[in-house]
Amino acid sequence: MTTEHQAGAPSSTGAPSSTGAPSSTVAAARILERCDVLATHTSRSDGLIERVYLSPEHTAVNTLTAGWMTEAGLDTWQDAAGNQCARREGVTAGLPALLLGSHLDTVPAAGRYDGILGVLVAIAVAERIGASGTELPFALEVVAFGDEEGTRFGTTLLGSRALDGTWQPEWLKLRDAQGVSLAEAFTAFGLDPAALDTAARRPAELLGYLEVHIEQAPVLFDSHRALGIVTSIAGAVRRQITIEGHAGHAGTPWHARRDALAGASEAILAIETVARSTGLIATVGHLQVFPDAVNVIPGRVEFSLDLRGEHDAQRDAGWARITAALGTACERRGLTFTTVQTHTAAAAHCSPRLRAAMAAGIRCTAQGADAPELLSMAGHDAMAVAAITEIGMLFVRCTNGVSHHPDEAVTEADVAAAIDALEGAVLALAAEYVQHA
Amino acid sequence: MTTEHQAGAPSSTGAPSSTGAPSSTVAAARILERCDVLATHTSRSDGLIERVYLSPEHTAVNTLTAGWMTEAGLDTWQDAAGNQCARREGVTAGLPALLLGSHLDTVPAAGRYDGILGVLVAIAVAERIGASGTELPFALEVVAFGDEEGTRFGTTLLGSRALDGTWQPEWLKLRDAQGVSLAEAFTAFGLDPAALDTAARRPAELLGYLEVHIEQAPVLFDSHRALGIVTSIAGAVRRQITIEGHAGHAGTPWHARRDALAGASEAILAIETVARSTGLIATVGHLQVFPDAVNVIPGRVEFSLDLRGEHDAQRDAGWARITAALGTACERRGLTFTTVQTHTAAAAHCSPRLRAAMAAGIRCTAQGADAPELLSMAGHDAMAVAAITEIGMLFVRCTNGVSHHPDEAVTEADVAAAIDALEGAVLALAAEYVQHA
Repeated sequence: MTTEHQAGAPSSTGAPSSTGAPSSTVAAARILERCDVLATHTSRSDGLIERVYLSPEHTAVNTLTAGWMTEAGLDTWQDAAGNQCARREGVTAGLPALLLGSHLDTVPAAGRYDGILGVLVAIAVAERIGASGTELPFALEVVAFGDEEGTRFGTTLLGSRALDGTWQPEWLKLRDAQGVSLAEAFTAFGLDPAALDTAARRPAELLGYLEVHIEQAPVLFDSHRALGIVTSIAGAVRRQITIEGHAGHAGTPWHARRDALAGASEAILAIETVARSTGLIATVGHLQVFPDAVNVIPGRVEFSLDLRGEHDAQRDAGWARITAALGTACERRGLTFTTVQTHTAAAAHCSPRLRAAMAAGIRCTAQGADAPELLSMAGHDAMAVAAITEIGMLFVRCTNGVSHHPDEAVTEADVAAAIDALEGAVLALAAEYVQHA
Repeated sequence: MTTEHQAGAPSSTGAPSSTGAPSSTVAAARILERCDVLATHTSRSDGLIERVYLSPEHTAVNTLTAGWMTEAGLDTWQDAAGNQCARREGVTAGLPALLLGSHLDTVPAAGRYDGILGVLVAIAVAERIGASGTELPFALEVVAFGDEEGTRFGTTLLGSRALDGTWQPEWLKLRDAQGVSLAEAFTAFGLDPAALDTAARRPAELLGYLEVHIEQAPVLFDSHRALGIVTSIAGAVRRQITIEGHAGHAGTPWHARRDALAGASEAILAIETVARSTGLIATVGHLQVFPDAVNVIPGRVEFSLDLRGEHDAQRDAGWARITAALGTACERRGLTFTTVQTHTAAAAHCSPRLRAAMAAGIRCTAQGADAPELLSMAGHDAMAVAAITEIGMLFVRCTNGVSHHPDEAVTEADVAAAIDALEGAVLALAAEYVQHA
């Protein structure tokens, strides 16, 4: 939080104006339009969406989002990590804040709702509460994180880890595929990497964090529900695995081949078998072959492993079995392998208080008391924010459970329900806060 | 062949001068030095060798090679396809030519002898025969082909297919990884793509083609022989295989995943199993994942298959079994696949006459009558040249059978033996030619 922000005065704390708030249906339609506008800010020329941390597209969507935050009557600022932030003061200035948010960055060839929807629903809720004239017993803040996916620098949650104060100084040396360091990217973006710690928030400043997100799995879709409450976010670990063999001519006889890609193929199938049988989810999403020529036996293959499980110990036991399978396959083929852990996140649990608030919010929608509880296999900014405050998450049904793909889709009715539910959750917390004060 | 060349006069047909020719040992040492010089002409900044067709490095090595050809007393020209050529007239000008040669292009991260050695041995032999004052009953030509590996445009043997007249006009539309078309590359190289057909030679102009090449397999190395005679070159077929699944979030549950890389891994292992059990050699050397992000299930994988066998029918039967295995794996995983044939070359057989000449050549070395016969699983320019004239090939032992790798190595003694053998083969053909004339 910058000094500029702290000195700022709320811009819209006038008399109650119940007619000033658009209906949740109108607000949902506007959110879908805004998702379409943000989708045009992509680094790709093929029309698909790709928007990474500290890119020109990141600047563009922060600027647009800041404009919508201002229209919603919020004070805005961009923090030292490039997160776009906004605040409405509560009944008096300087109160601890309830934080609402999600992220604006995307994976390559992304959909238009993952992360983005949560930011725009948070803005809509802040706008509706302001327009209704409700004076909250806490400040309300919205944060649009700049990096959740980790696509550019290989380490995820960079935005939320700046906010939660767990940022590691050595991350500034991470480089993107073009060789640009994170420190250089900060400078190019107009930020001072030396000022990063000013993005960190203190636990005492925060009352909790609520995030709305598409489900990224088909549980709600298959069970015909619009909204669900997240119980916990699976722990994830990512490793870069390198298999070394020996490059050679494509005509080399079988006994003399040490084919790193054949070894990697065996490893990928072993990963699948182990993960399926131990209740884990595993993804090999990145793979590169060297020298990658039609008529040369692959001498080296590098690939990523993303391993998720509800419990950290279960996940680590699965990794141990995968390592053993890798060793067996490599030994038989005359290959060697190394692994480097590039990311780890412990499973994060949503607090009973914020889960109850989300349930109260869902009761404000047509879904009523029917609030399914879900485990999130996908990681979220909330995992990082959990380091400094309680977290709660609301999942919105996405069509066929598809995400990280251009086919990602939500309905206007579900977005309207999400607005009503998040607003209801905020008001439920406000009521509870007043009661306990 | 250009008019300029045809009008040219042999530059060194003076009196016999047996002292003018360096010993084969001295010539071999010079060849290894020249291999080192050529190895410095690479497009890579990491010190490894990569030299593709119609590149600035191709210009550089053609210029160097033309200089060495001129020093060897040959008339030189670059043909319309960028092959560097040279000729020494026989006892009278304009006689049909015995062609000696190989190629100067490389795979990525290549060794320094594959192709290059054959060009330099051919030049050394032409020089020794000229310096000895021997008047041959045919012209002697050396050709350094510009593209054998096919690394840049995905289609191999472009150089020798221009010479043999089987060049396909649609190849001009092939594009490299940077989107440059073959036609554009010709123009950038200073050649006129419309003049390509002038590179084609008529069968009546040629008496045969002899190629020296490293073995690219460990048969000679394991059996402690320097040289071997090739009986035939295995037929090869190359396909680009695309597996389509559905990109999605890494947290997607197992039942909803359609992972193209898991399918490709299964396909690669099936290819290995089928090929091993049917006496074929198969290589998946290139593989690319889309969108290739750590936290996205691969929605599409493209990979190459290079399949070789001694007999074309055996190879095609293997491909049919591989297709069936691909179909089974894809159906079970909810994937689809397509394949495109990018290259095919029928098995090529070396002529009894040129195999006998090579055997006569080997008898001129310490190996004497011990001339092992080898099947080449690697493709060679000779496969293309076989379309217009008889072919013969001499294999030189390479250390551990390693090629297409920086560790590729030959010994000076083996190179000296190759010079003696190729010179002996040329002189044996000359003697036979005179006898039958």
